[in-house]
Amino acid sequence: MRGVVMYAPGDVRVDDRPEPAILEPTDAIIRLSATCICGSDLWPYRGAEPVDHQVMGHEYVGVVEEVGPQVRNIKVGDFVVGSFWASDNTCEICRAGYQAYCVHRVLMGTIGTQSERARVPLADGTLVATPGMPDPDLIPSLMAASDVLGTGWFAAVAAQAGPGKTVAVVGDGAVGLLGILAAKQLGAERIIAFSRHADRQALAKEFGATDIVEERGDHGVARVKDLTGGLGAHSVIEAVGTQEAMMQAIRSTRPGGHVGFVGVSHDVAIPGDELFMAGVHIHGGPAPVRQYLPELVQLIWDRKIDPGKVFDLVLPLDRAAEGYRAMDQRTATKVLLTV
Amino acid sequence: MRGVVMYAPGDVRVDDRPEPAILEPTDAIIRLSATCICGSDLWPYRGAEPVDHQVMGHEYVGVVEEVGPQVRNIKVGDFVVGSFWASDNTCEICRAGYQAYCVHRVLMGTIGTQSERARVPLADGTLVATPGMPDPDLIPSLMAASDVLGTGWFAAVAAQAGPGKTVAVVGDGAVGLLGILAAKQLGAERIIAFSRHADRQALAKEFGATDIVEERGDHGVARVKDLTGGLGAHSVIEAVGTQEAMMQAIRSTRPGGHVGFVGVSHDVAIPGDELFMAGVHIHGGPAPVRQYLPELVQLIWDRKIDPGKVFDLVLPLDRAAEGYRAMDQRTATKVLLTV
Repeated sequence: MRGVVMYAPGDVRVDDRPEPAILEPTDAIIRLSATCICGSDLWPYRGAEPVDHQVMGHEYVGVVEEVGPQVRNIKVGDFVVGSFWASDNTCEICRAGYQAYCVHRVLMGTIGTQSERARVPLADGTLVATPGMPDPDLIPSLMAASDVLGTGWFAAVAAQAGPGKTVAVVGDGAVGLLGILAAKQLGAERIIAFSRHADRQALAKEFGATDIVEERGDHGVARVKDLTGGLGAHSVIEAVGTQEAMMQAIRSTRPGGHVGFVGVSHDVAIPGDELFMAGVHIHGGPAPVRQYLPELVQLIWDRKIDPGKVFDLVLPLDRAAEGYRAMDQRTATKVLLTV
Repeated sequence: MRGVVMYAPGDVRVDDRPEPAILEPTDAIIRLSATCICGSDLWPYRGAEPVDHQVMGHEYVGVVEEVGPQVRNIKVGDFVVGSFWASDNTCEICRAGYQAYCVHRVLMGTIGTQSERARVPLADGTLVATPGMPDPDLIPSLMAASDVLGTGWFAAVAAQAGPGKTVAVVGDGAVGLLGILAAKQLGAERIIAFSRHADRQALAKEFGATDIVEERGDHGVARVKDLTGGLGAHSVIEAVGTQEAMMQAIRSTRPGGHVGFVGVSHDVAIPGDELFMAGVHIHGGPAPVRQYLPELVQLIWDRKIDPGKVFDLVLPLDRAAEGYRAMDQRTATKVLLTV
């Protein structure tokens, strides 16, 4: 089958890869309807993480073609969405809502879902079936649920976005934009988006942003303070993963407020003395998307949210290299690959 | 009046200092019954923070001698306990429970309560009166409420200690020990104390510790994992303020668990990538002791808790230098100064 392989930084190819097979009795094999390129795929693409002939992709939606003998709830023919961590959804950590840390977790990135078909471990715990076969126009939104929507949602929950709250969002990529959508759905009163790109500002507003701040760093922090009576936001989402973004998030948060961070942290170090004096809550990491999938799939199915709008470039799988280039050069926010 | 002044690191003297006076209409003047030396007073004593003829002390209990014309609730003759941050207890931040960040806060350490009398700003918002004049044996526990108990309590709340939870406590000083007491009061099922001192281990057990771990660092983390089915504690209190203690706390916490940190952080830097992968919540800083004071004073008054046991050396104010020396050399955990 065809699948994406990153040979080296900047060198992405669609190769002939081995067909997946059931390896464990809890596995399923899916034929992908769509997959996509993640912001985190750009780290190795740019040489910020080592890479050598690595299969790529951890986001996926598609139709179940085969299940192992111990799979009980997922059936051949189901249309399914899954998270980027396969999880049993029954261990103590999963039951506490932290499926990304399941004691039996498997990182889908090591399987590589930028491909025609894929093996999904722990199918019953990992996959969520839609109520029926989705209309084609729902595919991008279901695709978004697999990672960027679930991640933005987790960030908003971690930041305790909710009624009466002012939420600020650092990062206007797909995750940040969907953090805005999540904060709105969770009932936030006011949503401040940091963004200096007109198209992303427009989508931010469509998703629920009430204020746009173009300044960054401490100038951006000062603007948030201005907008919140000098106190800072109750809830701040950090969806970038750099030192500047993390400090901007912490400094934009009022004492007792909450920072939800989901940007993959590279070379970030949080100074303990500043964190001590800030008095904020910090929570983040790889999102337990599986926790939110049933709710998110239903919201999409009912057409109450349209997170698929973050995809601003659609390409066939064979043109994946073009998609990586577009995201790297920021001519696209998020690339959907049709299979 | 007599009061403690730190001339320089290691040089503590009891000097004649000016009598306090009402400066603002919301002030009160109290005559102290007792004061004490804080672990954080050791930072300048040891040269880890700059100090030059600094008045010392931010913990206090005593009797109100005078109130300003705008003080409504606190009366002359009241026996009062207050926090180390004076707060109005009415601003938006105070109402959210973060009185240590009150928009009008005043740090009592700048006033210096290791003295015979002291001015307390924002008296109505800062002070809590006991139901009557306390029996002398209650004074140490009420004194503890002013900082170390309130701080340990905040740490336990920040770590979300509660029923069904396993709580680990890093640091066996007064705050760590009272974090154990707080976790027990909050209903924790199992409390693991890191301690290698027999006397502190005994007090930890008296306060509610169920397990003692003598190992530190990653060896200590491994022991906590052993005791928790490999998962880590649900709740971890960090009451030291060093890099080793902070990392020990984060690594002892299961994914989705909570770290409450109250050790004053010096030269601590939390690596973003490790925090990202850990998936824990972190919250801490200067404790909003005022939030808990009414409840803590009542628990002490009703003799349901005895936090005063952390004081293992009692000296008259005039011998403060001896108290600093004892705490610096670890021959005392916590020193009460009678006035």
